[in-house]
Amino acid sequence: MEQVTLYGIYEKEFTYDAQTAVLPGCCSVTGSSGMADTVYTISAFRKGEGLYAVRIMPEQQGVYRYRILLAGNGETEEWKLEGEFVCVEPQAGCHGKVQTMEDGFVYADRTRFLPFGTTCYAWIHQPVQLQEQTVKTLGDSCFNKLRMLLFPKYMPYNEEDPAVYPFEQGEDGSWDENRIVPAYWDNLDLRLCQLSELGIEADLILFHPYDKWGFAEMTQEASLRYVSYCIARLAAYHNVWWSLANEYEMLMKKDMQDWDAYGSLLQREDPYHHLISIHQILQLYPKRAWMTHCSIQSGNIDFIPAWKKEYRLPILIDECGYEGDLEYGWGNLSAFDMVDRFWWTVSRGGYCTHGETFHREDAVLWWGKGGVLHGESEPRIRFLQELLVQLPGCGRAAAHGPHTNPNGKTEQEMTDADRHFNRLLERTPVENLSGLMAEVPKVISTDTWLLRYYGRTCPCFGWLNLPEAGQYRIEVIDVWEMTRETVLHGAAGRTRISLPARPGMAVLAVKEQEDELL
Amino acid sequence: MEQVTLYGIYEKEFTYDAQTAVLPGCCSVTGSSGMADTVYTISAFRKGEGLYAVRIMPEQQGVYRYRILLAGNGETEEWKLEGEFVCVEPQAGCHGKVQTMEDGFVYADRTRFLPFGTTCYAWIHQPVQLQEQTVKTLGDSCFNKLRMLLFPKYMPYNEEDPAVYPFEQGEDGSWDENRIVPAYWDNLDLRLCQLSELGIEADLILFHPYDKWGFAEMTQEASLRYVSYCIARLAAYHNVWWSLANEYEMLMKKDMQDWDAYGSLLQREDPYHHLISIHQILQLYPKRAWMTHCSIQSGNIDFIPAWKKEYRLPILIDECGYEGDLEYGWGNLSAFDMVDRFWWTVSRGGYCTHGETFHREDAVLWWGKGGVLHGESEPRIRFLQELLVQLPGCGRAAAHGPHTNPNGKTEQEMTDADRHFNRLLERTPVENLSGLMAEVPKVISTDTWLLRYYGRTCPCFGWLNLPEAGQYRIEVIDVWEMTRETVLHGAAGRTRISLPARPGMAVLAVKEQEDELL
Repeated sequence: MEQVTLYGIYEKEFTYDAQTAVLPGCCSVTGSSGMADTVYTISAFRKGEGLYAVRIMPEQQGVYRYRILLAGNGETEEWKLEGEFVCVEPQAGCHGKVQTMEDGFVYADRTRFLPFGTTCYAWIHQPVQLQEQTVKTLGDSCFNKLRMLLFPKYMPYNEEDPAVYPFEQGEDGSWDENRIVPAYWDNLDLRLCQLSELGIEADLILFHPYDKWGFAEMTQEASLRYVSYCIARLAAYHNVWWSLANEYEMLMKKDMQDWDAYGSLLQREDPYHHLISIHQILQLYPKRAWMTHCSIQSGNIDFIPAWKKEYRLPILIDECGYEGDLEYGWGNLSAFDMVDRFWWTVSRGGYCTHGETFHREDAVLWWGKGGVLHGESEPRIRFLQELLVQLPGCGRAAAHGPHTNPNGKTEQEMTDADRHFNRLLERTPVENLSGLMAEVPKVISTDTWLLRYYGRTCPCFGWLNLPEAGQYRIEVIDVWEMTRETVLHGAAGRTRISLPARPGMAVLAVKEQEDELL
Repeated sequence: MEQVTLYGIYEKEFTYDAQTAVLPGCCSVTGSSGMADTVYTISAFRKGEGLYAVRIMPEQQGVYRYRILLAGNGETEEWKLEGEFVCVEPQAGCHGKVQTMEDGFVYADRTRFLPFGTTCYAWIHQPVQLQEQTVKTLGDSCFNKLRMLLFPKYMPYNEEDPAVYPFEQGEDGSWDENRIVPAYWDNLDLRLCQLSELGIEADLILFHPYDKWGFAEMTQEASLRYVSYCIARLAAYHNVWWSLANEYEMLMKKDMQDWDAYGSLLQREDPYHHLISIHQILQLYPKRAWMTHCSIQSGNIDFIPAWKKEYRLPILIDECGYEGDLEYGWGNLSAFDMVDRFWWTVSRGGYCTHGETFHREDAVLWWGKGGVLHGESEPRIRFLQELLVQLPGCGRAAAHGPHTNPNGKTEQEMTDADRHFNRLLERTPVENLSGLMAEVPKVISTDTWLLRYYGRTCPCFGWLNLPEAGQYRIEVIDVWEMTRETVLHGAAGRTRISLPARPGMAVLAVKEQEDELL
């Protein structure tokens, strides 16, 4: 029996004579006995002229049986194909699809997933050599998630036509989503496989406004068929995430009903329930049942606690500016500020995404086309990643709002005035919070460790309020220089830590018993 | 006839037997013929045991006549004193009281006043030698406004009792606002005179919460008498501004009616209508008729356009963090960030205030006690001040909101998508604005010059959309290194400016004809 690794892809190709990209039929997949919960209904999709396929991602080990039913309905079933395969041990390092757990993420096998994403919007629309270079760069980088567009991109530094488009054009110039261009989709398959092998989640952006070819203006009917095609073809990749849009408000031909229709379709038809989000330019999309996490464009990182409270979903700051030197405000962060935004986001309880936009006369910017990295932030982002991966458990941000007092006192030390301040905070409008939050310590912690980031502030010392029970080892961390220095052992209770009064410092306290396990 | 300089103080002392600090009578002042608009009613005030005075600030040159009426009412008038003086040329450099003009400030003689303030909350409560040192430091600095408390201050780094209090204590320990302590008020007079001679506006904070002596908890009746006393005694200083509170919400015994009562009292009784504001910790005080400008505590500098739109008053960011290295988030800005906040505030159409909080074992921090400056921001703040003073006219911020498009295009270059973006902006809630505003160019301009600040962003070039008519000289400015380099002459229309891709750069364009006048 054919073997497929756990979370891998079983693909069954077949020939058939049909008119649509997504067939009006389906594949019913059943796991062997004892896997009653792995019954999927999966659409077949066209791969080429008369060539179709069904893809299955097994999520448990054991025998799978499938029946492919085409052009059928309840009354006139026409079985086309039946088959079976056995799902065996996963490939080394493959943990399956990412799903949410509380305000964070885990793989299917319950391994923690800490997103450290980057952005190459139009990399699959570039010359092959450049795509290969991008894969190489990604493999050498710390990034484990990639925001990428399915449709080509038109905006400054992205003005070329791609070599291939996803669809053929009809005689009237409109895109015919029923006539896919195999070269485009085969290349996409290749790239998704490569990302999968590198352990990189592909955050696939289905629609975006930076378009001169008309993909942003397809009819809703055509757009839905395109989404169905993506599900049928791409959902079997364990590393696929669905992002309905980049800057949804800028797609002038679509309204909220349209977006909700895509979200609902994905929620209904994706048999594996991959992550679904939508990215905004101005106003966060309202919470919806199909939404698994927030994909946010904002430099207002201090709003994370407010967003967490409102959405009760994991928060990804997927766009907070890019490291670079463009003339545009969204593309000229210093490397320090890019690194700062990662630490800042993490210490407010969210996850951050990188991008790089250094001006180049050849217009090959990482954020748009991929290629190589020119900046200085990636090694520092890796430094943070390695630190967090090393620590056991998911750190939680201190609070869902700035419920504290101006002078960082403990509950015992608080005066009536401090409590009064806290009461005032409770009725403070959200627009004031971001300014206030600047003074709220940026801290994540578990029962056994605590990480505080000081951001751009320059204290010459700080206080940690550690539990009296337990001895803690204290590290002072320089997030730019990437140094970690243990300054204290056996700390407990309120502990004063000397700091060098410059930006970009953090302090880590680890319970010494736990520390020995690290 | 006695001579008094314009905007100086004429003081008439007299002895009288009365029980209250502010006499239940008044001084009626009339200018000579031709000055019909200079009729003031001014309260007398107690200076010491049986010693009283009336102070008059003449605002026009010419002869003034006054009549002091004590313990009188409409029926039983009792003239106590009459007199006259002549008001002559002002002292060199004295321009009179500051008042608002549109969204900025001017002196009485219509000279522009660009606030560049600093903060020494409790300096008048320190040992005399330290006060003298503070005066010296202020005189050597660029600062032209000083935020200071009238009551002593109790909080970290400010824990000592002052040598003198404003009032005597009653037998029950409560403060008796009818029994002033002359030593306190005489010293205050001295310090206000010194500030006046240095050209520094005294932004007098009448109430504040950081108190262990009970001044924050005086009855409303007593508090109002204290305010009346301040008006009677201090309003004659041309350089006095009234600030009702520091962090008004933290004064738990006062409510909005109380604050409104102080504001109305000042508006009604201050014959010179000095500036009046109130400083918050969380929520801006709602707009009131007595309010002449906004005195804001916030790091949300990008909200300035929203506040300007709401209040239609000049915006002073009187507290946006202090340069220093304290453990508190409000007191550990890097020098660069303090300088950045001045440029940022100015380029959003507001005015910024300095403070300095470097940890010292002797607890003499500039922000609390005065003394000397230890930081690096003051020379850079002066650099900005000198630049602005040199430029003719008051620069206006580009817009009252982020009405622009993401890629900085001109109206001609804008696409439907850009216009769509602008329409979206119009219905964006205020809480989103601060994130967005980061991408809106920080620009102030007049008909003859334009100053754009790039903040922490690192563009390697920028575009200026200059008028086609007129030739412009372009300077590239490094706000930290304090360098100004002319890089272009004769620029017109859309002009590309090379920039060094590091934080803290600005560009100035000056119409060359105007430039010759500078």
